[in-house]
Amino acid sequence: MKLIRYGNIGEEKPGILIDEKRFDTSPFVKDYNEEFFETNGLEKLEAIVKENTLSPVAESERWGSPVARPSKILCIGLNYRAHAEETGAAIPSEPVIFMKSTTSLAGPFDDVIIPKNSEKTDWEVELAIVIGKYTSYVDEKDAMDYVAGYVLHNDVSERAFQLERNGTWDKGKGCNTFAPLGPFMASKDEITDPHSLKLWLKLNGKIVQDSSTADFIFNVPFMISYVSQFMALLPGDVISTGTPQGVGMGIKPLPVYLKAGDVMELGIDGLGSSKQKAVAYQKH
Amino acid sequence: MKLIRYGNIGEEKPGILIDEKRFDTSPFVKDYNEEFFETNGLEKLEAIVKENTLSPVAESERWGSPVARPSKILCIGLNYRAHAEETGAAIPSEPVIFMKSTTSLAGPFDDVIIPKNSEKTDWEVELAIVIGKYTSYVDEKDAMDYVAGYVLHNDVSERAFQLERNGTWDKGKGCNTFAPLGPFMASKDEITDPHSLKLWLKLNGKIVQDSSTADFIFNVPFMISYVSQFMALLPGDVISTGTPQGVGMGIKPLPVYLKAGDVMELGIDGLGSSKQKAVAYQKH
Repeated sequence: MKLIRYGNIGEEKPGILIDEKRFDTSPFVKDYNEEFFETNGLEKLEAIVKENTLSPVAESERWGSPVARPSKILCIGLNYRAHAEETGAAIPSEPVIFMKSTTSLAGPFDDVIIPKNSEKTDWEVELAIVIGKYTSYVDEKDAMDYVAGYVLHNDVSERAFQLERNGTWDKGKGCNTFAPLGPFMASKDEITDPHSLKLWLKLNGKIVQDSSTADFIFNVPFMISYVSQFMALLPGDVISTGTPQGVGMGIKPLPVYLKAGDVMELGIDGLGSSKQKAVAYQKH
Repeated sequence: MKLIRYGNIGEEKPGILIDEKRFDTSPFVKDYNEEFFETNGLEKLEAIVKENTLSPVAESERWGSPVARPSKILCIGLNYRAHAEETGAAIPSEPVIFMKSTTSLAGPFDDVIIPKNSEKTDWEVELAIVIGKYTSYVDEKDAMDYVAGYVLHNDVSERAFQLERNGTWDKGKGCNTFAPLGPFMASKDEITDPHSLKLWLKLNGKIVQDSSTADFIFNVPFMISYVSQFMALLPGDVISTGTPQGVGMGIKPLPVYLKAGDVMELGIDGLGSSKQKAVAYQKH
């Protein structure tokens, strides 16, 4: 199944994507949130879709993040060999973990706002995992049981905030609109092997990231097990698995950062593609 | 007003503390959560308390965190001069920010679980701010308008996870039970000056932290304004303002860390005191 959410920001309703068309599931399901995943929502949704005639969603409706605001968005840093090299970082001996403020969540076609005083806003195409049930200290061999599905994520990052502002990476990761998710969450069964997915990102039509999750340093079950040694995972939580080489800060001879008007398009095998325009911050 | 929550873990109900006695407000208020603060809950609660006879809460009832699980628990690192010195860190030129997984939230008298494989679990008494309304890019001069109240926080930290495990501080901050909050949230009007509060922590009856928020490097409005430059703040969000000197990792000649059976008691002027026993992790 391919879960989507649609509607205005903050008023999103759940739906489902079938043959590239969106259908409304909101008469049957409240939202794709912690409670949904916790109470076997995916199984129930499957039955609902089989047994009911669903209304189509108007094409004009905005695409929202396919999952509701989770308890946390965790990220793994430097999880592709070639990306670690381009940033000048050593290949990590164990995963780097950081967190994005969940207020950074955005829809897959929303504008990305370049923050006030930002000069180094950058892109990062990533495969993100959505957790299906509570876990803590899960063994690697059992970790896949806790996956609800996968979603495309642009882990937008402000490099000066992240690296030059005297703090943890969290400063440069959680600005508003810095986590466009979607277009849809694919349930786990749709992705046969999360470790052989091509993923790419184009800046203004030109490929800048072009890699495969086959280049992961740490694989999906290892990452889930690892993170769960440090903090509990809740249903609906998002773990983003790192970005491959080709980010703006790695471009030679000089880094390239987003300016207003730039367009990012990104995609992963089996998870569709998304597109965001960078816009300048404006006071509301 | 002094807000409390009571009841079993995950089933907490809202209440209020009057003359050191707890009263139930759950017939009138759903919970002290984002929606509560967003919809002028504190003002409504004041009227409710005036106009109604409230039932007492049984003494045997557990004390829960006085606020519901927030969208995020942000922390400021190294915000007291003498603490920065004891950890060997430079006085920061601007605040260090990190995040605690909200699954670390605990009640003020709950046991603190020493994580599996932990050898360096440490204490940190802190003044925490509870945010009252949405803000982003708030000016320092307006920042106090966004404070709902204050609460005592033990920012329990695993120093090896935080500093020796190849990642941001987040790894050592978000383990289950690592954020005991309470006993109560004092509304802003109860704390005349958040910059002259004595705060202390005793380990097994012996004072180890004994300081005052007068030793802050960065003050409350500055911290709120600063954090809001990097991420939006939601009603109910918690910002913990850093710990003074006297943590276990700073003890000379050798650091001291928590062992099962150790008891922490901590307090801040006007925000009461809390007490947690350290226990070993046990598989459930």
